[in-house]
Amino acid sequence: MVVSLRGQTLPDLAWRRLGEYLHETRLLGSIQNTLYWDQNTSMPVGSSEWRAEQLSLLARNLHARQSSGYFEELIKEAKIEFQQASQLGDLDFAEIDDRARNLELLEQDLTRQKRLDPDLVSILATAKAHGYHLWKQARASSDYQCFAPALRHLIGLRQEQARQLSEARTIWETLAQPFEPDLSIERLKELFEPLRKSLPELIENVRSWKRPDSYKWDLDAKSQRLLCDQLLQEWSRDRNITCVAESPHPFSITLGPKDFRLTTRVVSGQPFSCFLATAHEWGHSLYEQGLPIQSHQWFSWPLGQATSMGVHESQSLFWENRVARSRPFSERFWSSFAQEGAPVQCGEDLWQALNPLTPGCNRVEADELSYGLHILIRTDLEIELLEGGLDVEALPIEWNRRYKDLLGVTPPNDSEGCLQDVHWSEGQFGYFPSYLLGHLISAQLSEAMADSLRDSGILEEDPIDFCIGQGNEFSLLSWLREKVHLHGRKMNAEELVEKVTGLPLSSSAFLNYLKKKLELLNITF
Amino acid sequence: MVVSLRGQTLPDLAWRRLGEYLHETRLLGSIQNTLYWDQNTSMPVGSSEWRAEQLSLLARNLHARQSSGYFEELIKEAKIEFQQASQLGDLDFAEIDDRARNLELLEQDLTRQKRLDPDLVSILATAKAHGYHLWKQARASSDYQCFAPALRHLIGLRQEQARQLSEARTIWETLAQPFEPDLSIERLKELFEPLRKSLPELIENVRSWKRPDSYKWDLDAKSQRLLCDQLLQEWSRDRNITCVAESPHPFSITLGPKDFRLTTRVVSGQPFSCFLATAHEWGHSLYEQGLPIQSHQWFSWPLGQATSMGVHESQSLFWENRVARSRPFSERFWSSFAQEGAPVQCGEDLWQALNPLTPGCNRVEADELSYGLHILIRTDLEIELLEGGLDVEALPIEWNRRYKDLLGVTPPNDSEGCLQDVHWSEGQFGYFPSYLLGHLISAQLSEAMADSLRDSGILEEDPIDFCIGQGNEFSLLSWLREKVHLHGRKMNAEELVEKVTGLPLSSSAFLNYLKKKLELLNITF
Repeated sequence: MVVSLRGQTLPDLAWRRLGEYLHETRLLGSIQNTLYWDQNTSMPVGSSEWRAEQLSLLARNLHARQSSGYFEELIKEAKIEFQQASQLGDLDFAEIDDRARNLELLEQDLTRQKRLDPDLVSILATAKAHGYHLWKQARASSDYQCFAPALRHLIGLRQEQARQLSEARTIWETLAQPFEPDLSIERLKELFEPLRKSLPELIENVRSWKRPDSYKWDLDAKSQRLLCDQLLQEWSRDRNITCVAESPHPFSITLGPKDFRLTTRVVSGQPFSCFLATAHEWGHSLYEQGLPIQSHQWFSWPLGQATSMGVHESQSLFWENRVARSRPFSERFWSSFAQEGAPVQCGEDLWQALNPLTPGCNRVEADELSYGLHILIRTDLEIELLEGGLDVEALPIEWNRRYKDLLGVTPPNDSEGCLQDVHWSEGQFGYFPSYLLGHLISAQLSEAMADSLRDSGILEEDPIDFCIGQGNEFSLLSWLREKVHLHGRKMNAEELVEKVTGLPLSSSAFLNYLKKKLELLNITF
Repeated sequence: MVVSLRGQTLPDLAWRRLGEYLHETRLLGSIQNTLYWDQNTSMPVGSSEWRAEQLSLLARNLHARQSSGYFEELIKEAKIEFQQASQLGDLDFAEIDDRARNLELLEQDLTRQKRLDPDLVSILATAKAHGYHLWKQARASSDYQCFAPALRHLIGLRQEQARQLSEARTIWETLAQPFEPDLSIERLKELFEPLRKSLPELIENVRSWKRPDSYKWDLDAKSQRLLCDQLLQEWSRDRNITCVAESPHPFSITLGPKDFRLTTRVVSGQPFSCFLATAHEWGHSLYEQGLPIQSHQWFSWPLGQATSMGVHESQSLFWENRVARSRPFSERFWSSFAQEGAPVQCGEDLWQALNPLTPGCNRVEADELSYGLHILIRTDLEIELLEGGLDVEALPIEWNRRYKDLLGVTPPNDSEGCLQDVHWSEGQFGYFPSYLLGHLISAQLSEAMADSLRDSGILEEDPIDFCIGQGNEFSLLSWLREKVHLHGRKMNAEELVEKVTGLPLSSSAFLNYLKKKLELLNITF
């Protein structure tokens, strides 16, 4: 890497030293990810204590690297070198922008890391692994009490972490920053409140529809796996840089600049669970694959990372809901399902089955209409657990009460209630809203994408559906790559949305999208 | 951990500090093993460069830990503390022995590590991963030239490593020490020369037999996997601490005190390949599971490690050949094979099929009679490559010439010739003899085991076969646990064999075993 100086080139030593340091940090971080992947896809259960110790050791080392005086010095030197080069007018504008943003983010991240007590970092890593282990046991036997002490411990540690970070934000806001930079509870309310009102109304409308029972069937595991393979093949999966496995909770993870992995799961009685989870995680993976890491340039730098989990979710939800649950997609795929024994005789059958619109207890299996309500409940509960005085003991009761209120359903047990998600078991608080933000962002981006496609000459009423019908998902992906993926952490989520769509983020596009979908689904009766 | 002092207890601080240091080293080492496991079972091929960098980083860190002045100091302090406690007469004899041996081995290993240039350690780690990557490509396309430069590079690095270690041994001997402590080329010749003469004679005798073609059939992959599952279930596999996957080259590896993994592979046209590889790797795994790591006491200490790869192989070969290829085992298992479609109608059919006695080009698929010759060829070649002036270019020709001479066969291409094994691709030289030493050790241990079983009242002519027939492998395993596994690195391989069998290691028991087996196989016609 060199700075060009009026046609000449000079080695920029400080910048390069910093890059090497970041590179090694990323190597360590990706080792951590490999252990996480292994833990969820292969590791025998007896090894969870040892794995927790391994992860704690790595977390300690990583934290030491990310908060060290040496690192601080490297950033300082790189900044001085950068300022000198910029003043000389010898960096082009794009380069100045990129470097300035990288330095800004590095300084921000460093400040956070430096404020954390290394002991807390290490204790948290152990507590996460331990919590995950107990959660798995608790979920298997629907025994919330077996997990509750670990949850209380994790909450205490995370509260302590927020205090150490001492930002001008509430505890929950502080913990949400790594997922949604700059998000506040107030702004979240602004975005979500229209949904708290509208979604139950929409669900109420749908309740009166008579819908066929055609989707009360199942597919065997082998068929489900085969359909997932077909899906990823249609979507041009490159086997040289991707890997698919199964885990209790589907996820997507990056282990290297050419190593993108995802998991799915087969759920008995849910013939689309595996298929839609694959579509969802593939959307995440596409975002990671499209980040500005070409020729690894920013792979180890802040700019090469995802800007927010809301944007991440918008990408997974786009492929899961906007594409895989669309009518033209069903037209293309119904015969593959039929071949595997699904009782569908046309695209319409598959499409209806893929859009059940029946509120249930499970978030991951939820339809688009009720999904948001699952998130509102979790968001409210975790804010209350962390800063509202809600006691861990009361969680199952509170959980069930809110499900009854908002969705009109009651989980038959805690496994299918407050133990269903992995997040809290690993001390992850502040993440859930990203799922719903993802719905809003995906819908708002889709409107802009449709406009772009129209501008490029696709004059059909729904240009996205048209592309899907043509098997031309590549056009959709190209747009996302250019407008979203390639920016990395250059802007935060709301800045990105406003830049791409010309409007501030809101729930309008999402609500419009839902209403249009309901119209279409109802018309078909 | 405390030292008992005349009924009282005193904290032994230095010993504990040393233990904590070793514990962290073992954590790092097991992270390395996890990356290795992942690389062979899941990782997409595009990630091999990044993985090489990760492994190199870990190797550098590990080497720094294992050769640091701080570590040296910890050992010294623990030694002083230990000597004081021993002189006071306050440690029991077993404890004195164990600690003394641990310290002796730690000092020996430290001396080796200190002599190595950290740069070389890191370069070697990268070269190994790179070599492995190229070997996979070369083997897939049978293109030796694509791999040759990497092999030459690895040989150069390993020669340099031996020079840096500057032991009073030849280059090859120095590199063989980690696998077979205290082994010399001279002793190796003593042990192997009788085989160079006898094995071709035995093969020649067998050549005149007329044998049925019953084993010219195959099983589909699903059936093979099912039979492997059944096998491990019969052998009391504990799924809480073990994991099975597939990889191009089967191996067994320990990732934690309760995390034992093994791989197998399905080879088209070789219906027993997967089954016997599973038996083989399970034998390795049982040894690791039986090492003195109960309640993790020595898991991070030298005493908790395998004493030599020859002993390791003796354990895998015992379960593969002495058990799974025995007649009574076939009596028990033939119906399972028949159920999966194998054309066997009785135990005798399966037993004949499991013991083909036809020399071929492939080591891993070789029968017991020709296996030793595969090893003699590799051992001779690697000694010549490292210290005899054999050029890398000449390897394929030399390989094929020796196969013609000793086994009477010629590989159809280099994939099935000198590219068939993974070892050299990772710069592993000095390992191959361990396979054959394993045959000798297994046979000699089996004779002692039979004597013990007779002493315990099993009066059948072949007490081991009797136990196998009864489905009582547990008796065999218990004997191995007590006599072999539990000693860890307390003695070297030859000391262990002499202690357990009362005789110095030799090839007699192995040759007797082979002759007896041939007799039995011939009688059945």
